[in-house]
Amino acid sequence: MDTQISPEGRMEVLSKAEVGKLLDNSHGGLYQVFRSCALAVLNCGSGLDDGKELLERYKSFDISIIQRERGIKLDVKGAPASAFVNGVMIKGIQEHLFAVLRDILFINVEIADGKKFDLNSSEGITDTVFHVLRNANLLRPQVSPNLVVCWGGHSISGTEYDYTKQVGYQLGLRGMDICTGCGPGAMKGPMKGATIGHAKQRLTHSRYLGLTEPGIIAAEAPNPIVNDLVIMPDIEKRLEAFVRVGHAVIVFPGGAGTAEEILYLLGILLHPENAELPFPLIFTGPESAAEYFAQIDRFIADTLGVEAQKHYQIIVNNPAQVAQEVEKGIKQVREYRKQKGDAYYFNWLLKIDAEFQKPFEPTHENMRSLELHKNQEPHLLAANLRRAFSGVVAGNVKNQGIRAIEQYGNFEICGDIAIMESMDALLSSFVVQNRMKLPGKAYTPCYRIIK
Amino acid sequence: MDTQISPEGRMEVLSKAEVGKLLDNSHGGLYQVFRSCALAVLNCGSGLDDGKELLERYKSFDISIIQRERGIKLDVKGAPASAFVNGVMIKGIQEHLFAVLRDILFINVEIADGKKFDLNSSEGITDTVFHVLRNANLLRPQVSPNLVVCWGGHSISGTEYDYTKQVGYQLGLRGMDICTGCGPGAMKGPMKGATIGHAKQRLTHSRYLGLTEPGIIAAEAPNPIVNDLVIMPDIEKRLEAFVRVGHAVIVFPGGAGTAEEILYLLGILLHPENAELPFPLIFTGPESAAEYFAQIDRFIADTLGVEAQKHYQIIVNNPAQVAQEVEKGIKQVREYRKQKGDAYYFNWLLKIDAEFQKPFEPTHENMRSLELHKNQEPHLLAANLRRAFSGVVAGNVKNQGIRAIEQYGNFEICGDIAIMESMDALLSSFVVQNRMKLPGKAYTPCYRIIK
Amino acid sequence: MDTQISPEGRMEVLSKAEVGKLLDNSHGGLYQVFRSCALAVLNCGSGLDDGKELLERYKSFDISIIQRERGIKLDVKGAPASAFVNGVMIKGIQEHLFAVLRDILFINVEIADGKKFDLNSSEGITDTVFHVLRNANLLRPQVSPNLVVCWGGHSISGTEYDYTKQVGYQLGLRGMDICTGCGPGAMKGPMKGATIGHAKQRLTHSRYLGLTEPGIIAAEAPNPIVNDLVIMPDIEKRLEAFVRVGHAVIVFPGGAGTAEEILYLLGILLHPENAELPFPLIFTGPESAAEYFAQIDRFIADTLGVEAQKHYQIIVNNPAQVAQEVEKGIKQVREYRKQKGDAYYFNWLLKIDAEFQKPFEPTHENMRSLELHKNQEPHLLAANLRRAFSGVVAGNVKNQGIRAIEQYGNFEICGDIAIMESMDALLSSFVVQNRMKLPGKAYTPCYRIIK
Amino acid sequence: MDTQISPEGRMEVLSKAEVGKLLDNSHGGLYQVFRSCALAVLNCGSGLDDGKELLERYKSFDISIIQRERGIKLDVKGAPASAFVNGVMIKGIQEHLFAVLRDILFINVEIADGKKFDLNSSEGITDTVFHVLRNANLLRPQVSPNLVVCWGGHSISGTEYDYTKQVGYQLGLRGMDICTGCGPGAMKGPMKGATIGHAKQRLTHSRYLGLTEPGIIAAEAPNPIVNDLVIMPDIEKRLEAFVRVGHAVIVFPGGAGTAEEILYLLGILLHPENAELPFPLIFTGPESAAEYFAQIDRFIADTLGVEAQKHYQIIVNNPAQVAQEVEKGIKQVREYRKQKGDAYYFNWLLKIDAEFQKPFEPTHENMRSLELHKNQEPHLLAANLRRAFSGVVAGNVKNQGIRAIEQYGNFEICGDIAIMESMDALLSSFVVQNRMKLPGKAYTPCYRIIK
Repeated sequence: MDTQISPEGRMEVLSKAEVGKLLDNSHGGLYQVFRSCALAVLNCGSGLDDGKELLERYKSFDISIIQRERGIKLDVKGAPASAFVNGVMIKGIQEHLFAVLRDILFINVEIADGKKFDLNSSEGITDTVFHVLRNANLLRPQVSPNLVVCWGGHSISGTEYDYTKQVGYQLGLRGMDICTGCGPGAMKGPMKGATIGHAKQRLTHSRYLGLTEPGIIAAEAPNPIVNDLVIMPDIEKRLEAFVRVGHAVIVFPGGAGTAEEILYLLGILLHPENAELPFPLIFTGPESAAEYFAQIDRFIADTLGVEAQKHYQIIVNNPAQVAQEVEKGIKQVREYRKQKGDAYYFNWLLKIDAEFQKPFEPTHENMRSLELHKNQEPHLLAANLRRAFSGVVAGNVKNQGIRAIEQYGNFEICGDIAIMESMDALLSSFVVQNRMKLPGKAYTPCYRIIK
Repeated sequence: MDTQISPEGRMEVLSKAEVGKLLDNSHGGLYQVFRSCALAVLNCGSGLDDGKELLERYKSFDISIIQRERGIKLDVKGAPASAFVNGVMIKGIQEHLFAVLRDILFINVEIADGKKFDLNSSEGITDTVFHVLRNANLLRPQVSPNLVVCWGGHSISGTEYDYTKQVGYQLGLRGMDICTGCGPGAMKGPMKGATIGHAKQRLTHSRYLGLTEPGIIAAEAPNPIVNDLVIMPDIEKRLEAFVRVGHAVIVFPGGAGTAEEILYLLGILLHPENAELPFPLIFTGPESAAEYFAQIDRFIADTLGVEAQKHYQIIVNNPAQVAQEVEKGIKQVREYRKQKGDAYYFNWLLKIDAEFQKPFEPTHENMRSLELHKNQEPHLLAANLRRAFSGVVAGNVKNQGIRAIEQYGNFEICGDIAIMESMDALLSSFVVQNRMKLPGKAYTPCYRIIK
Repeated sequence: MDTQISPEGRMEVLSKAEVGKLLDNSHGGLYQVFRSCALAVLNCGSGLDDGKELLERYKSFDISIIQRERGIKLDVKGAPASAFVNGVMIKGIQEHLFAVLRDILFINVEIADGKKFDLNSSEGITDTVFHVLRNANLLRPQVSPNLVVCWGGHSISGTEYDYTKQVGYQLGLRGMDICTGCGPGAMKGPMKGATIGHAKQRLTHSRYLGLTEPGIIAAEAPNPIVNDLVIMPDIEKRLEAFVRVGHAVIVFPGGAGTAEEILYLLGILLHPENAELPFPLIFTGPESAAEYFAQIDRFIADTLGVEAQKHYQIIVNNPAQVAQEVEKGIKQVREYRKQKGDAYYFNWLLKIDAEFQKPFEPTHENMRSLELHKNQEPHLLAANLRRAFSGVVAGNVKNQGIRAIEQYGNFEICGDIAIMESMDALLSSFVVQNRMKLPGKAYTPCYRIIK
Repeated sequence: MDTQISPEGRMEVLSKAEVGKLLDNSHGGLYQVFRSCALAVLNCGSGLDDGKELLERYKSFDISIIQRERGIKLDVKGAPASAFVNGVMIKGIQEHLFAVLRDILFINVEIADGKKFDLNSSEGITDTVFHVLRNANLLRPQVSPNLVVCWGGHSISGTEYDYTKQVGYQLGLRGMDICTGCGPGAMKGPMKGATIGHAKQRLTHSRYLGLTEPGIIAAEAPNPIVNDLVIMPDIEKRLEAFVRVGHAVIVFPGGAGTAEEILYLLGILLHPENAELPFPLIFTGPESAAEYFAQIDRFIADTLGVEAQKHYQIIVNNPAQVAQEVEKGIKQVREYRKQKGDAYYFNWLLKIDAEFQKPFEPTHENMRSLELHKNQEPHLLAANLRRAFSGVVAGNVKNQGIRAIEQYGNFEICGDIAIMESMDALLSSFVVQNRMKLPGKAYTPCYRIIK
């Protein structure tokens, strides 16, 4: 499908220099990353979670910018038909295209050259995350804390999906807004449920935040309910964005990506400087997911220990209770921020160790050298475990990761035997439960556990 | 649960005399009807569709009006807990309470005494319908035709319910608004689906109209997504409201009430003066409902004839096609109104015979004397068949109807044998398919077909 | 000038019957009063304050209603050019035309036949005033008291006019809204000043109320800043509207009409039942108006006595102090209403004696028989004095009054000598100061004082 | 006066690093420039046009930033009382304080270090202007061209001031928005007039732009009607901003600053590359200003020649005609931009020679070395003449300029005798007509013409 679309809002105004950069097709120019993110956005709802396949399927897809007297337009050619109704692009997808434009430009013009932000210091990275979010107009100061991050798999069962809707509905009835990593499954259900809850409460300015990054967006295209989409520079800054803007986190059943997120957050919460800081964290699912969470719980106990288990609660099959616990937890967050004078819209006080901020490139060598032993502080072990799962996600669904596996074979992961066995058990159960890929596809593992 | 709530909008301003009338508990005073409608609204989502049972269950329920310096408040005592979240009444339900207040007052102060409107003339009745709707701020002149009336059962299967959501979603993606008779099932599904569609298209001023009347509201409480609720004076004016404000009608599977609605509309469309007038009418359901609509189709052919069959199309299991046909049909409606200079917001040109406007009281005698034979014009036979089904609905779910059946036994329905057999077959199939009452209750028929 | 205009808001939706009534040109039909009020509205800013002359000048003026698919339109022919800019009618004037339509219809359909409101009882008249105002959407319950009524002459000096702007500016800076009787001079200045004050305070929902009636609108056409215009049924209901919706009253210099308003308000405040009720009343003007208010003050002392003088304060040449005193007074009003549970938007507690509510028809006989002697309670004397000034206004500027004077000669006013002398002095000073008519016209008195 | 104020909008969200910069009181830190601009904004309406005097009068004035959980607040101490009503800061002034904050930060963080924008190239300077304006949210793409720049003196007679109001009123009635250089006199009048015009036309999103720069803001404090204030980095970028965002320019009578603006604009329009480009330019004033414009006209003829005279028209005493000519001209601008695909909100096509972009520092040496002779292209002579007048403005009202004059005596200006005589005549007439300073102060020239 071909079309031309106009933005609404600030993004309509680009300088000549900015348009030039976006259309720069040369090596190092922005066009390729802009095109692939745009295609991912247009492909939402297609049931395809493979970035490489996507690019190959829509080879003739093209997107360019036109200057008009009333501002810019996007000229889109060869776009997936699912993005259109009666030949007109769905409004939510239009907005996403302009969000892509805004963030790709900001990431590259303001951040990439390293002049403005010191990407080698922890403060500099946090400042970068702050500015990407502020530029996306995501930081709203007058709003009371109400943003619930929902994590979980993009490939979940019908029962689990309905459950995420129920939880979203209960959150929506209580005026909570939702933030997810975009994509289908546990990232879509809570938003749909919350939409109905908000409608019943006549809440018209509700926010459905989606945080993604160029590497994952193709696999987890933002569903069009998302009305605030941000493309973060990389996976680590995306994770930091989640924990700096969210006021509570709910984890639904998921696969390797969900495990990565859990380890990331526990690693941070285990840092001694965060000991006092309230941070509501709930694992929940329907009856059928009870065993799943028991497994996760065991894995955490085995690797990070009892202390880590104190940071979350598991609630089985009780959406209203989940919502009530979230409310209770957020009340404490509000009190704490007020008392400390910290912003509601950005959790400055949360200490994130540089280990969690440095981008991890899942090469075969990096994967093999991960230090997965207990002879280190729990929050550092968490950081390394997080990297291991991050690599598995890349090998499963990201364009670069898939190509690397095709070329060099599976990743090798090694470490303490106890940890390796725990990890093997967990990953195997994900495979058995079809949590690695969208249904209908057989899963070929991209890793090998070396015990 | 007890609470005090404030309205938003015009209704906050009542004169002293108006408050007096609403609180008048004497015979002929408004209090009783106001209280029972308010209770019905508060009871939404309860799974109870029996007005008599409802009143008995909440005997201590009380509602009164308080004058305050910033306007009126409603003081509610002993309300169903399901209307509240964390002790606060759901906003949508609050709005419904004030809609009840507004309409009960208007019906009684402006209409009931018969001074202002001539309730004996067809024009006078139409004028009454117009004024009730205008007073409810329902007639929005600047809007292009986009209002789709969805009819169908309040007691339908899960598959049928999901299907109504799918249709609603497709309508919502196309910017259509939804109007139903309130209540669960086929009256709720399209609104939920449309809500998601509207969210994806960023449509924030969408309308979810619910048209009800004091006799049915207890059985079909408006779900809180409804953001424009109107209580019409009686069932005939409610039906007239549907066809005067709607731009297209979709019929999902349902029971006696749905059959009543179909007969009402076909009766009108068969009137010679409406021969030219476009009026999109679609019967639709999932695969499993194919047989149901075949039955309806046969009944119509048997009783009203082939001409009547030309006024609708049946679409099985294709939500997108339904939405496209509706769009196509509404386009013709717009052209026609524009050409004739008729209002988009009120179908003045539709001829409604007085037979369809006069309230029908389903007493045992009236039911027995219905003229159900072919020796009359089809649109008059349709009017009488409509009354027959209307009586069955009353006997099933309305407070007065149920009491009458308890006292005098089942209604007797008689007429031409062919018609009686057709009718018997249809009603029996409704019973078998559980379309008469909400699931979980055995259905005891309230009628007897005399062949 | 000819044009067609569309309304915005509820008024776009008229029933067929209503359109019929408005276009009814027969005796007793609404067309004539609708046409003359519409013409008055269109003639604003023309410097003409003579209703009879206006109708004669625009003999070919015609206005009619057209039904369109998106609602009604007004078809205007032969309108004064001053209502247009570049051939397009000024938006504020468009709104006024639809306000005229709305009120003329309401007055005649709901009130005139006397079925709905008891126009013979004091309560019935107050209820009528309430309903006219509510129908005009003037009663806004959520707003804190902030409505300042400004009275004063339509024919005042440049210095006095600038002073009313200064006062309006100070009120606007303090978030006060303005209500006047429409027209130029002291009725326009405060609105212009307040507009600038509101702009500086970024108040975008400010209200500029104009209250008028069919008899006076031609002489005092609403200036287009007025964004809430109401045509009350007659002069007594207009006066009642002022004191029921206003939270404070400021009186600028004026002529007979201003004197009428002062006497009306003092008469009410002197009623024993209003003894406790706070009602801020300030007479103010520039240095040059000091003597004018001294005169008024003396006239009040001479006729109504010292007690009446306690109800107002006179502030000379200090706009900021006026605004501060108004604020202080309104604070008391708010406290009082809150304590008594009376509405902020309608002063139900204010007792208005039936004497002040009954329409006074200023025929020669009625004028001659006014009881202008001290042998009665002060508030009744005020009522009669009010009528005398009302007659003078009619003879000066109203169509009917002017014709009566032309036919029967001047009104005769008689009573106690002391009162007559006081009155003669006051009226003569108005003549000398050019307060009777717009400048540039010699004033021919329409009355004769019989001592 | 002391107070704490909260912003509305994006500015509430500052990073820790940004707050640090703003409060940096060290040499090169932002605090001093932030404080002096803030003080200027607070001092509006004071009748003081001398930046140096202002800083000395409010020595104890202090402003600082506080981080709160809902965003930042400004803590203001020792502010001029005129900025407050009843102890609360006027809302418009609050907004201006945050505009100052935003722009001072942007100018220094994004521009000053020269990394992002190439301030040595013409394109780079234009890009800088674009980004300052976009960051201030001034570039609104969906708006049709309607922005009228009004230039003229801050010190003008009452008659001239009333005339600027009349013109503003006529522009406002036609839906035009106003842009000025802030300050009183000809920069305030058009906004006041337009406010009334917009109110009558019910235009609620009208824009009153004020463009200033740190050096002039103290002398010409923005009046609070300005609802979009931008502090440009320097005088040249401020002038470029005027001509890039305005769609037409009206020049009222003024002094040296007005002459500077006229020369700047004529110099640009005389550039050969702008020959085709429509740019409406009107000089206008009341009858009493006829001679003034005749003088300006002669000066232009004498120095820049007949060609330059073709670029403007002079209209005496006809506000409606001015507005009509502006409309006509803007229509051509719209056509031209549409045809060329140039933005409505930013005049990219206007060629501005680097000579007009380079900041001119009015030192004694620079003033003395200006090349004021005819032996150059007219647009370059215009550039130099512009600089001469710019120096005079600095010596009259800017803090640095005043100090330089105090230290080194008057500026010396020299060049061709004919030009010098013309210039002397013009400047002398400004002195005689009190156009150099606010009334009530004797003017001591800061320059000496060397013939």
